[in-house]
Amino acid sequence: MDIHDLTRQLHVKNDTKIVLYVADGLGGLPQKPGGLTELETANTPNLDALAKVGISGGSIPVFPGISPGSGPGHLGLFGYDPIKHLIGRGALEATGIGFHLEQGDVAIRCNFCTLDAQGNITDRRAGRIATEESTPLVTKLRAVSIPGVELFVEPVKEYRFVLVLRGKGLGGHVHDTDPQRTGVPPLAPVAADDESKKTAEVCAEFFRQACQILAGQPKANACTLRGVSPKPHLPSYEEVYGLKAGAIAVYPMYKGLARLVGMDLVGNAQTLDEQMTVLEENWAKYDFFFVHFKYTDSTGEDGNFDAKVKKTEEYDAAVPRIMALKPDVFIATGDHSTPSMLKSHSWHPVPTMLVAKNCRTDACQKFGETECLRGGLGQFEARFLMPLALANAGRLTKYGA
Amino acid sequence: MDIHDLTRQLHVKNDTKIVLYVADGLGGLPQKPGGLTELETANTPNLDALAKVGISGGSIPVFPGISPGSGPGHLGLFGYDPIKHLIGRGALEATGIGFHLEQGDVAIRCNFCTLDAQGNITDRRAGRIATEESTPLVTKLRAVSIPGVELFVEPVKEYRFVLVLRGKGLGGHVHDTDPQRTGVPPLAPVAADDESKKTAEVCAEFFRQACQILAGQPKANACTLRGVSPKPHLPSYEEVYGLKAGAIAVYPMYKGLARLVGMDLVGNAQTLDEQMTVLEENWAKYDFFFVHFKYTDSTGEDGNFDAKVKKTEEYDAAVPRIMALKPDVFIATGDHSTPSMLKSHSWHPVPTMLVAKNCRTDACQKFGETECLRGGLGQFEARFLMPLALANAGRLTKYGA
Repeated sequence: MDIHDLTRQLHVKNDTKIVLYVADGLGGLPQKPGGLTELETANTPNLDALAKVGISGGSIPVFPGISPGSGPGHLGLFGYDPIKHLIGRGALEATGIGFHLEQGDVAIRCNFCTLDAQGNITDRRAGRIATEESTPLVTKLRAVSIPGVELFVEPVKEYRFVLVLRGKGLGGHVHDTDPQRTGVPPLAPVAADDESKKTAEVCAEFFRQACQILAGQPKANACTLRGVSPKPHLPSYEEVYGLKAGAIAVYPMYKGLARLVGMDLVGNAQTLDEQMTVLEENWAKYDFFFVHFKYTDSTGEDGNFDAKVKKTEEYDAAVPRIMALKPDVFIATGDHSTPSMLKSHSWHPVPTMLVAKNCRTDACQKFGETECLRGGLGQFEARFLMPLALANAGRLTKYGA
Repeated sequence: MDIHDLTRQLHVKNDTKIVLYVADGLGGLPQKPGGLTELETANTPNLDALAKVGISGGSIPVFPGISPGSGPGHLGLFGYDPIKHLIGRGALEATGIGFHLEQGDVAIRCNFCTLDAQGNITDRRAGRIATEESTPLVTKLRAVSIPGVELFVEPVKEYRFVLVLRGKGLGGHVHDTDPQRTGVPPLAPVAADDESKKTAEVCAEFFRQACQILAGQPKANACTLRGVSPKPHLPSYEEVYGLKAGAIAVYPMYKGLARLVGMDLVGNAQTLDEQMTVLEENWAKYDFFFVHFKYTDSTGEDGNFDAKVKKTEEYDAAVPRIMALKPDVFIATGDHSTPSMLKSHSWHPVPTMLVAKNCRTDACQKFGETECLRGGLGQFEARFLMPLALANAGRLTKYGA
């Protein structure tokens, strides 16, 4: 069942404003069983006050037990089935560095690697070469030239870079050339379907010229090509929800994900305070705002419980500036949990709260994992958050007579 | 996933009785956030007593955020996926006036409209002509005659009437002839698929003859044809559940919906008391009873909180007569919420309670929206209620070995 089959036909326009305020990796775990999570430990008076008048619950990013990456995590929040709409790894990598993929582009994650004199791989990550060393090599690779295809070679970090192919008739499905072991040469690029035969040839020619350019380099004298993928076909917010949507994010990955669903990137904020200013300044221009806060995730990934508590308090402290704008629907949630105890994304349902005039308030008195368990949203798949937001904004008409 | 794929192969017959007691639009909202809903305000001692021994929860009619019409709302309660089994608007309109559609019939909602001398529409609803004026005109339209096709022209209300086509080879997909604006003529009927070409021709001929018959009428001198749709293909209760089912409803719409899934229409009750008498008199004859109470919805639609409270108390007051019959499974629920604060159907989960010997009672002490949040049924899609009813009646065997 595709949510958009219904929202496409049922959405109506009005003057309401919806704010989706995302704390990346919001959900957590206590340091000891039975203790408090990061969110529950944090002093969050603003979110707690809203919990009393809103409706709370636990958002399940994909399905129970699945820990999503940033791509599926955000697609779910945006209302796109994260299983149906998979963003290929190359496309996600390009998105993450802020590269603007066009329809028909093919994106590829590349690794620098080390080959011996016989052409066999001795190091699949080129000695984890530093970014300062690899960036000039990426620049050199821009000399690769293949007739009929426009090439973009962009640095990412350390041994990783992105290659984007732009041209006619390039299918997006070629198998990885990384053999996943050393002592053998990189694999030849093999098309996974008929439409991708030309793409495989372009990949082979890129590899040939890249090896020439990199010849003599002590570490990064070759590369592997992985995660070949087309620009994903995601219908836009305007089409499926009738929403003019703006994204206020700091990191390229989240800006990129928002752009993939047709949101405008608004402002150039570098801090949460600046994000709030951008929100205020652009309040009249959009129906829907996606505001992304990164640091609840990064502190969780670092395994720093106290730092995540502190970042959660920063996330809370900005809430009054949002509420002063009187959004018709305010949602606080995360794209997934990142418990500092696990130092990674996890599968745990994410504390979520929706505040709107007719939301049917529950008995929740605070915003936190345990309290959300008795919330009126229950536990729900993240992709249902957008239809709920639209309904609470009076933007969905009745289904069937 | 189709529930019926499993129930079809797993159902068994026994002597149990199931009562599905539906208060239309049961769910509500408080008059102020944090207050009590209509159901929570109402004095419902009988339902409250049952909540202590039953299992409660919140029924989601379609999916979160979707406000269903009566068609999808009831299909969900009956266990039919309301997205997969869409009842076309013409078919629903025919159903709503108690017209018994046969396999192969095509049903059409028609509007009287006003054309000027040039044949352009000046009023799409013929001045909202009163029912007393329009009904004689509908009768006149029965003079339309088209070889090879049986026509039924039935009044609905004001400017609306229903046309049903019965004959061989009539596809059910023709585009609306209502141009949705004035100053232009009605559109010609266009088939949406090859199977409906003859249907489009019949529609065009009906329109031609109707205009002749209506010529000279001051308001209703023509009509538009909309929502052309076939009788929906719904498998019967007998086939998918092995249940001999009877419907005890007052309004034609709910009788019609019940008949679409193969229920018998039982009795001719006009009041809830009479419905209870019909239930008692026919207790031995059926495995399953659908008892429909309309007024919790209509008072909600009217925006009359107090009246909805009162109607909810009437709904409660009839419960002892049902329970005196000792049903093996008793379910109290609604097809959707109709909060009087919204004066319309809404998306909010519907308070639902199932009472049966082995239902695994929860801690709920009353029947109401807030209390249901801690119920053992959790929040669930309405379509899962029927398999739960069957299971609690001992009518489903094990799936797989």
